[in-house]
Amino acid sequence: MNTVNLTRADGRATNQLRELKFTLDWVENPTGSCLVEFGKTRVLCTVSILNRIPRWLKGAGQGWLTAEYQMIPGSSSERIEREAVRGKISGRTHEISRLIGRSLRAIIDLKTMSEVTIAIDCEVLQADGGTRTASISGSYCALMVAIEKAKLLNLIPESVELLDSISAVSVGIVDGVPMLDLNYAEDSRAETDMNIVQLGNGNFVELQGTAEAGSFDNAELVELIKLGTLGCSEIQTAQKSALAGGK
Amino acid sequence: MNTVNLTRADGRATNQLRELKFTLDWVENPTGSCLVEFGKTRVLCTVSILNRIPRWLKGAGQGWLTAEYQMIPGSSSERIEREAVRGKISGRTHEISRLIGRSLRAIIDLKTMSEVTIAIDCEVLQADGGTRTASISGSYCALMVAIEKAKLLNLIPESVELLDSISAVSVGIVDGVPMLDLNYAEDSRAETDMNIVQLGNGNFVELQGTAEAGSFDNAELVELIKLGTLGCSEIQTAQKSALAGGK
Amino acid sequence: MNTVNLTRADGRATNQLRELKFTLDWVENPTGSCLVEFGKTRVLCTVSILNRIPRWLKGAGQGWLTAEYQMIPGSSSERIEREAVRGKISGRTHEISRLIGRSLRAIIDLKTMSEVTIAIDCEVLQADGGTRTASISGSYCALMVAIEKAKLLNLIPESVELLDSISAVSVGIVDGVPMLDLNYAEDSRAETDMNIVQLGNGNFVELQGTAEAGSFDNAELVELIKLGTLGCSEIQTAQKSALAGGK
Amino acid sequence: MNTVNLTRADGRATNQLRELKFTLDWVENPTGSCLVEFGKTRVLCTVSILNRIPRWLKGAGQGWLTAEYQMIPGSSSERIEREAVRGKISGRTHEISRLIGRSLRAIIDLKTMSEVTIAIDCEVLQADGGTRTASISGSYCALMVAIEKAKLLNLIPESVELLDSISAVSVGIVDGVPMLDLNYAEDSRAETDMNIVQLGNGNFVELQGTAEAGSFDNAELVELIKLGTLGCSEIQTAQKSALAGGK
Amino acid sequence: MNTVNLTRADGRATNQLRELKFTLDWVENPTGSCLVEFGKTRVLCTVSILNRIPRWLKGAGQGWLTAEYQMIPGSSSERIEREAVRGKISGRTHEISRLIGRSLRAIIDLKTMSEVTIAIDCEVLQADGGTRTASISGSYCALMVAIEKAKLLNLIPESVELLDSISAVSVGIVDGVPMLDLNYAEDSRAETDMNIVQLGNGNFVELQGTAEAGSFDNAELVELIKLGTLGCSEIQTAQKSALAGGK
Amino acid sequence: MNTVNLTRADGRATNQLRELKFTLDWVENPTGSCLVEFGKTRVLCTVSILNRIPRWLKGAGQGWLTAEYQMIPGSSSERIEREAVRGKISGRTHEISRLIGRSLRAIIDLKTMSEVTIAIDCEVLQADGGTRTASISGSYCALMVAIEKAKLLNLIPESVELLDSISAVSVGIVDGVPMLDLNYAEDSRAETDMNIVQLGNGNFVELQGTAEAGSFDNAELVELIKLGTLGCSEIQTAQKSALAGGK
Repeated sequence: MNTVNLTRADGRATNQLRELKFTLDWVENPTGSCLVEFGKTRVLCTVSILNRIPRWLKGAGQGWLTAEYQMIPGSSSERIEREAVRGKISGRTHEISRLIGRSLRAIIDLKTMSEVTIAIDCEVLQADGGTRTASISGSYCALMVAIEKAKLLNLIPESVELLDSISAVSVGIVDGVPMLDLNYAEDSRAETDMNIVQLGNGNFVELQGTAEAGSFDNAELVELIKLGTLGCSEIQTAQKSALAGGK
Repeated sequence: MNTVNLTRADGRATNQLRELKFTLDWVENPTGSCLVEFGKTRVLCTVSILNRIPRWLKGAGQGWLTAEYQMIPGSSSERIEREAVRGKISGRTHEISRLIGRSLRAIIDLKTMSEVTIAIDCEVLQADGGTRTASISGSYCALMVAIEKAKLLNLIPESVELLDSISAVSVGIVDGVPMLDLNYAEDSRAETDMNIVQLGNGNFVELQGTAEAGSFDNAELVELIKLGTLGCSEIQTAQKSALAGGK
Repeated sequence: MNTVNLTRADGRATNQLRELKFTLDWVENPTGSCLVEFGKTRVLCTVSILNRIPRWLKGAGQGWLTAEYQMIPGSSSERIEREAVRGKISGRTHEISRLIGRSLRAIIDLKTMSEVTIAIDCEVLQADGGTRTASISGSYCALMVAIEKAKLLNLIPESVELLDSISAVSVGIVDGVPMLDLNYAEDSRAETDMNIVQLGNGNFVELQGTAEAGSFDNAELVELIKLGTLGCSEIQTAQKSALAGGK
Repeated sequence: MNTVNLTRADGRATNQLRELKFTLDWVENPTGSCLVEFGKTRVLCTVSILNRIPRWLKGAGQGWLTAEYQMIPGSSSERIEREAVRGKISGRTHEISRLIGRSLRAIIDLKTMSEVTIAIDCEVLQADGGTRTASISGSYCALMVAIEKAKLLNLIPESVELLDSISAVSVGIVDGVPMLDLNYAEDSRAETDMNIVQLGNGNFVELQGTAEAGSFDNAELVELIKLGTLGCSEIQTAQKSALAGGK
Repeated sequence: MNTVNLTRADGRATNQLRELKFTLDWVENPTGSCLVEFGKTRVLCTVSILNRIPRWLKGAGQGWLTAEYQMIPGSSSERIEREAVRGKISGRTHEISRLIGRSLRAIIDLKTMSEVTIAIDCEVLQADGGTRTASISGSYCALMVAIEKAKLLNLIPESVELLDSISAVSVGIVDGVPMLDLNYAEDSRAETDMNIVQLGNGNFVELQGTAEAGSFDNAELVELIKLGTLGCSEIQTAQKSALAGGK
Repeated sequence: MNTVNLTRADGRATNQLRELKFTLDWVENPTGSCLVEFGKTRVLCTVSILNRIPRWLKGAGQGWLTAEYQMIPGSSSERIEREAVRGKISGRTHEISRLIGRSLRAIIDLKTMSEVTIAIDCEVLQADGGTRTASISGSYCALMVAIEKAKLLNLIPESVELLDSISAVSVGIVDGVPMLDLNYAEDSRAETDMNIVQLGNGNFVELQGTAEAGSFDNAELVELIKLGTLGCSEIQTAQKSALAGGK
């Protein structure tokens, strides 16, 4: 394991994020939206407030938050077949949608909401690695915008507050070197990759590490978590700045 | 029927298009792309070259061109349920995808192509009326870009040429007044709406008129076609300008 | 463009319809039915009154009318795969079903109806071109029968009236010659084909023209509309005669 | 159990069939067709020869025969939802399609065929009980027609012969009385119903008895089989007559 | 036809069942369960009481009973593709599920039940012929257990009683010899096979005979029914013994 | 955070596994099988060798390994709707199937295999928490059996070897206390739960931690990993013992 800050193919240090950009209100129709960019990865996150609730929550006197993720066919250099055409959603899409939903539910007290559903949609417009972590990070910004607007429109009670901020980043071991925020070229030859979702207070909401080739030991785990924590913290700074400017 | 150039809610004359914008190469992964804007309507058109051909064309010694259209859930103020989640494509989506494919096939001689499929994808990112005509107009630009790049990459023979340019616009009768390029508010209360697809030489490729309330007579038809021809011609000018600047 | 009344392969003049036949009550179980024949094209149209309404019309105090079209597997010389077996409806089927529904809705004031749905089903039993226009024309007859019977059975209020009659026909340009009511052999080599749906008063409800090869100009458009208007008018005469005899 | 020849609601004796009618070549496009009528039950049976074979028979040097059954939405007084729209085939439809296919396979030696599939399609146009037995009986006639035509067209070898004729009928116990060829009203209140499929030589191909209410004993079984054998024999006579007339 | 008690490949006489085993409560979560074994055929039958009723029975003041059958992928030596992955249920699965449901409904008076649904699930864990008859026989035991437990839990009224016991067995003609309880090797080369479902009183609930090759005559039918009646009676004895021991 | 070895509702210490049981060859038809029990959780793992390979691996000269997981409807006290009936696989099922497949692929060098697919199927027969980790642990045993048998049957080359053993366990924080191997009651009120998959050498293959309520900090993470490592090691001992006895 090598932790020196080597230079990568795109000139970054191993502990360096790609350029971040959060554009609030990129589209106007949904209650909140954010176009998030992690380098070339570009995801449009939208938030809609639906005046209904899943069947199993009927009468429970609370709200719900759910998320759907999808890559558009032209987001990748090899065209991605449209899932609506295949008639079914792939396991990967399901898995990522569930991850985004679980992550964002961690920062909202559903019991303070009225019987509405917050629907988050993440459309990957350009994919270059880290689409799921960009989606979570961008959804947070879109959600902040939507919560404010939804209160103004009396769609949710004034008392609803997000409990904390949230951000996510990928880390991995490439050619034996732990690295932060993998792009597609790095991700596709990583031995291990890990997605880390953290609150503003530094606590974990999700931690998913997978050995793509071989396995990883405890020392590597510790190193990856250190890198991921650094990355999440810097993303939080960029989110705050965008939200401040957006007001 | 009233043909005076009245002012509309958004300040336009009845024979005036919304602001047009064609941004080439808005995403980099597909062979060609164009972000097209007709006012607030915003569609991302991408073109991919697939190294395969439909089963029924196997061995026919020619290529194919197909198109798929979809609205993202957050494109509308009332969230649109994701067709991949419902597991089936709506009739409306099918109808528009087929229209786009038919229109673009009108300007390419499939027999000059090798056995590849040109796949056009139109993602409606923001919907404010006219999404199908914006899709056709933007797909033309993305296709122009893709054809050039595909030749450089030897994905298609050097001899492939587009036969003409193509553009499309909607027209309709609103409160008895024929109007060009309806936005959503106008479209949703139009008595008649019509989509017109024309070549650069002014000939028709498609003409689809529907009476949403009541019916329309021959005089109204003539007037709508006049407006549509004017609109298509102005869109062609904007396309040419974008393609010239994009080189 | 050649508008002389040439003789066609089946002996018809270019402005001549095939033999028309409308057999009312061909099946007894639905509220109304009509077996319509345009030459060899044979479609069974049935009308059922359903005691329910689409979710989005609940409480709107009006009725609804919808249509479904399908070709049976043995309707064509090359067997058509059953859509129920494939598990999804083709774009073509969707498109035609929507056209039939829109057309018939043009002649009924849904607000005068109680909260019921009029379901029109068109089964193509033998296909020889013009199945969609035969379907619309036959559905009108089946609907007339059904409305009368439904009033007798108190399924709909006595006040419901059809606003006008409706008929449809296809026209096209074959080998440069505009022709009325294309059969399959003509349709499959037409340069342009157009479907025209008209009210009894001669106004248009739908107009759909497609250049299958090349494009069409304004003069051709005018000629096609003239032929279509002639055809619709003759079909109206045959419908009236069948409905008069059917009483 | 009561075996006296009582008169039924429609005037028939308990051992009497409804009026039978086999109209050959009712539609012309498929290789063979027959419109079969058992009283008001009306089924259009078509036979197509497909130039392919199921995957699991590839290279086995034999042919295949398969069948699909479907009720059109307007075949019943309560409209039947279209299975293509629901996106799946009901258990009942599957069960009947399989029964028809198995039955017809009993009279053809698939090893004498080339690698083609005989596709039988049964569309129930009007349903009044006994649709599955009418389908089998009508499919036999359509198959006879198709085999002759397919030989002329060199679609199958001259040596293919049907091994025997086949017919089917329903029997049941209604209000304690065994009856032949139940119509819908009888079938829906039968205690037991049974479908019998027999060869021309009187042997059984299928026998399916179901107690809808209670159970049936051996004596009832014997009586039902006697009635069914009588019915199958009379249907064979009608089939022969139609096929003789059809030549 | 040969009715001598020959010895079979597995040493059984032609009128001999395989070893039977009914293990009650093999799993604990559902209201009732039974692992049934007919030789190597092993099916897990579970019974759940659902607090709902099909839509078409709403307000009818009665209960419902339904069944679902499925083979797990590893139940056969050639892996069976998972129907959930294919996205549709095969005709064979549908047919057997319907048979099990109909059979078990024959022994319960649904009108004595409250508005609940008894859901029977039969998972074939190991398949060696006779899976549908083992499923019916095992479901009876699981149902007996569930009815008792459901009364204790007040899920159904105390007054609900099963009307009789029920069992099922397959019989068939193999190499011209009628045999009882076919295993897979016998079943796959049987000329005729038949499934017989009987009440404790010896009456029939279902009788399904199919000629897989050729046909069968009346004498063979009589012989098969005799064998099946013998088999059903012995299975009833084993069921009673298991239920007695299980209390 | 409390790390004292408290006693749990079922009498276990916080660092104690439930009773483990691995029954090899529980069913005989697939190439390998293992019934695994973690307390009341009971999963049947089967392994089949398929003579085919996914399309995207055609010609790559290697094998593939895939897994499918499913809960039978009666595995839970609240009946689980059958996914084959719903027509689609839930996100949860997809996610777990992918996890099992990825985990088992970590211990086999696919390049040493011929062009066959190893299909692992995990049927949850009784669910009481930890079904995914039991599935991975049981699949390893079934795979060991299958590899040996497949070599004897010449289905795979003699040179194929598993690279290491593999086991998995769940850990979680319940009422503030880190615990090993959660049962359903514990899992459903855990604040954090984590699934850990380890090789025999103690390295990680997968690590998935989720905060179900709130979040977890680094100290809790370290404690959970310690518990999981202990559990995986004890499971490895039980697997070895079962495999030794099975020879």
